[in-house]
Amino acid sequence: MKIDALATPALVIDAGRLDFNIKEMARALPGDRLRPHVKAHKCTEIAKLQALAGHRGFTCATIRECEGMVAAGLGEDLLLANELVDARRLGALVANRARVTLAVDSLESIAAAASGGVHEVVIDVNVGLQRCGCDPGEAGRLADVARSRGLEVRGVMGYEGHVVGLEDASERARLCRESMELLLAAHAQVGGSLVSAGGTGTYDCNTWATEIQAGSYALMDVAYGRLGLPFRQALFVDAIVISSCSQWSVADAGLKAFGMDHGNPEAEGADVWFCSDEHVTFGPPRRVGDMLRLVPAHVDPTMAYHERVHLVSGDDVLETWPIDLRGW
Amino acid sequence: MKIDALATPALVIDAGRLDFNIKEMARALPGDRLRPHVKAHKCTEIAKLQALAGHRGFTCATIRECEGMVAAGLGEDLLLANELVDARRLGALVANRARVTLAVDSLESIAAAASGGVHEVVIDVNVGLQRCGCDPGEAGRLADVARSRGLEVRGVMGYEGHVVGLEDASERARLCRESMELLLAAHAQVGGSLVSAGGTGTYDCNTWATEIQAGSYALMDVAYGRLGLPFRQALFVDAIVISSCSQWSVADAGLKAFGMDHGNPEAEGADVWFCSDEHVTFGPPRRVGDMLRLVPAHVDPTMAYHERVHLVSGDDVLETWPIDLRGW
Repeated sequence: MKIDALATPALVIDAGRLDFNIKEMARALPGDRLRPHVKAHKCTEIAKLQALAGHRGFTCATIRECEGMVAAGLGEDLLLANELVDARRLGALVANRARVTLAVDSLESIAAAASGGVHEVVIDVNVGLQRCGCDPGEAGRLADVARSRGLEVRGVMGYEGHVVGLEDASERARLCRESMELLLAAHAQVGGSLVSAGGTGTYDCNTWATEIQAGSYALMDVAYGRLGLPFRQALFVDAIVISSCSQWSVADAGLKAFGMDHGNPEAEGADVWFCSDEHVTFGPPRRVGDMLRLVPAHVDPTMAYHERVHLVSGDDVLETWPIDLRGW
Repeated sequence: MKIDALATPALVIDAGRLDFNIKEMARALPGDRLRPHVKAHKCTEIAKLQALAGHRGFTCATIRECEGMVAAGLGEDLLLANELVDARRLGALVANRARVTLAVDSLESIAAAASGGVHEVVIDVNVGLQRCGCDPGEAGRLADVARSRGLEVRGVMGYEGHVVGLEDASERARLCRESMELLLAAHAQVGGSLVSAGGTGTYDCNTWATEIQAGSYALMDVAYGRLGLPFRQALFVDAIVISSCSQWSVADAGLKAFGMDHGNPEAEGADVWFCSDEHVTFGPPRRVGDMLRLVPAHVDPTMAYHERVHLVSGDDVLETWPIDLRGW
């Protein structure tokens, strides 16, 4: 099948670049040094390639992602890096012999883990991002509570999400160190073998975590593309020009084809003016029927909009994969 | 079923408000004066309620929306208000006795309509939005070309999308008039019975169009909520607080649950700080396990993220509907 036979907007992955990115990361962080985050791609076919590259454990953001990974035979060592107030669906996976470790950061989330049938947890520590995670000074006490509830505490996690996107590499490294000093202090109180942290933006400078939770590296986006990382842009949305005038053109990919929180998509040789539900207006104008290849500003919420993604090489469509970890 | 049994994030519709909005619009624009736009909700169960309120024709933005409407028995008079370079999937619907009218604005889109098996078109006219539509002065010539290709030209359409969101009502009305003067000038050259235009923001001031293409009115969002229209906010995303500290809380609805192009969702009594993939951070803090009801900033791309929506009345879940017009 040729690429011009795809219904547009078409989400496509450059096969060579995906392969390069996965190999480059596996070289830098081999085996269990990387716990790839599946929230970035939500696609078990991509997770299988990451497993083939040597990574046995995966990070998930939702229960559905855990369920889908187990269904795909990738449930050897999953970390749900998020808190739950009802862990029964995870407990059902554990009862069926999947290994799922859950993040906890409060008495309530520990109680949910224990009563839901989860056996293993990590203490989630706030290392500076205004999101989940306990105060570093509370981590040891929470670990004691978790153990008293019969839970195995595998260690700590702490996501430096306020750092991973900083464009200045030295500032990124400096703030990553500050965050990890907080996490290591918590780990000293908690114990366990895992210190889980990091993302694509800190995969190389975070030398304190025992495992890095990077996900975006496999596909990349405009935002991460600004950081000077070795990973190549592998994800695109192909659209067709459906209308054109002397000043601008309109192609058939819009707000429902792109995560928009990081701004408009970009396209080589084109200036994107704005997106509507099913349109992107850009200049300079091109001919009706021409293809426009767009780069999403943010990979994760872009993948979540699409039912499927096409693996392409030049003009050839090699495979079509369901984005099977969507929803909740 | 009670609302607290729903997996979160849960997309919910207040049944009473949906009913109010549909009735209020049917009172203002009865029967064929409204051609509801299904892109706003992408849900045939909601379209069925709009049909029950007396509207026989519908507006669509994608081929998939047309196909889904026909499959649901709502293919009596569909307008695909968008250009195509390949209309064969629409032609297949027409061959199966659905009535589908296609927007055209160029020789290429006319050729696609004719060769794809579509029989009826409207000339799409640019009335000021930098998107699709021909120059008003070209509309008559394009209509002649379309007729020479054997197409029935039902009239014109022209969407004043640059006007519908203006918060100043008198400015909205003034610019709507300017846009419709362009459209009526084109219509004088084109002929046909249809002058199709408008949206929720201009449903009352656009008195020149023969039919209004409003869609958002049924569910509403933060952006349209600022215009002082009589329609009530009917759509919400319910999330659960999963983490809390002394300064903020985090609930489990994020970038993959909301169209973000109009900004963050809002919540009564809460100040939304920021969204991550699966989180919203807000203050002041609430207790872990509490429910947070969020209002999406933009309805259309929010609906497109979710597999299903729950119709609720107070704490009761009355029905669960698939959002079956998603994708392409």
